[in-house]
Amino acid sequence: MYTLYYAPGAASLLVHWLLIEFDQPCELRRVDTQAGEQKRPEYLALNPNGVVPTLLIDGRPHFEAAALAMTLADRHRMPDLAPAPGEPARADYHQWMFHLANAVQPLFRIWWYPHEPAGADHAGRVREHVVPRIEAAWDRLDAHLAAHGPFLLGPRLSAADFYLTMLLRWSRNMPRPGDRWPHLGELARRMKARPSFAVLYEREGLTEWA
Amino acid sequence: MYTLYYAPGAASLLVHWLLIEFDQPCELRRVDTQAGEQKRPEYLALNPNGVVPTLLIDGRPHFEAAALAMTLADRHRMPDLAPAPGEPARADYHQWMFHLANAVQPLFRIWWYPHEPAGADHAGRVREHVVPRIEAAWDRLDAHLAAHGPFLLGPRLSAADFYLTMLLRWSRNMPRPGDRWPHLGELARRMKARPSFAVLYEREGLTEWA
Repeated sequence: MYTLYYAPGAASLLVHWLLIEFDQPCELRRVDTQAGEQKRPEYLALNPNGVVPTLLIDGRPHFEAAALAMTLADRHRMPDLAPAPGEPARADYHQWMFHLANAVQPLFRIWWYPHEPAGADHAGRVREHVVPRIEAAWDRLDAHLAAHGPFLLGPRLSAADFYLTMLLRWSRNMPRPGDRWPHLGELARRMKARPSFAVLYEREGLTEWA
Repeated sequence: MYTLYYAPGAASLLVHWLLIEFDQPCELRRVDTQAGEQKRPEYLALNPNGVVPTLLIDGRPHFEAAALAMTLADRHRMPDLAPAPGEPARADYHQWMFHLANAVQPLFRIWWYPHEPAGADHAGRVREHVVPRIEAAWDRLDAHLAAHGPFLLGPRLSAADFYLTMLLRWSRNMPRPGDRWPHLGELARRMKARPSFAVLYEREGLTEWA
């Protein structure tokens, strides 16, 4: 049994979307991040990082969206969204999950919280500097999909594609959104056509990038 | 058979250290990052991100140090450095691997490349801003080890501890190095006492933080 602490459209979206894909019932607890609920003692007791998501798995709290995605994909094999350990494709799966977590998502942290690297008075400059870095990430990912797509693991859909789609969504108001790259755009179209995406949007009350 | 593209002390250290732990022969290819070899076409053909490590697994290139650590720990079970999928501890293992990759290592990218977020003329300011964020990460990790240590998974050593030790090493010249936190310091001492650590230092020609 799962309980998900989430905020609409935040990194919790990846976990929520996969729970819907796996047809797993889950209790949703909305965290009002605008009001700073994620920094209150009762939430920090669950997740000392003060961010969403937190997922209770059999009552125990766990954090980090990409980790939760991997854990869910290993626990639930229908649909099969992760190569099993031992399969050669597992190494590629690890690679793409960590590439998104380590090299791409942190750039979005800078985009969303531009005061962090150099103070509030330099936020505009920081945003200007991060845009070409995110675009360079799309260049590389689009080139990979062009050569080895349509999914990150080639013909095989995996949890990494859900993760990438969430990040593409986050770029929707940037100067050049990620789905303007041709192969990333095709991936986004396929992912958004999944019935689970409509359920996710309805449950989180999302409208943008529908 | 493995071939590791590395630079001494860089993120490739994690992969190299685990290959030694698993007693796996590997061909080492040093990349002269000072000379920019990681940005040359022949290297970018292996790893379009232009960073080390790249690991050839049966001739195929793979990247992302944390991903490679997980892949190696799943492939080689002696010593056993990863809970198997299905074990409850696997969720914690995913959590800590991704926490280090997503929330801690990117802060070190800012520390090592302080010109990236806001330009070269703001590098000093950026470094000042990142120090307390890295220290806050040590606070949280030390508190976790105090309550649930001595390793990230409690009594059980895992690849995540090797990863954390590499990051602690990276902080050695910061105002307050991570191993000054008591439980992080104890973890570092245990990890540095492993015979594999001495082999690693000898092979990479490292001396600092020995």
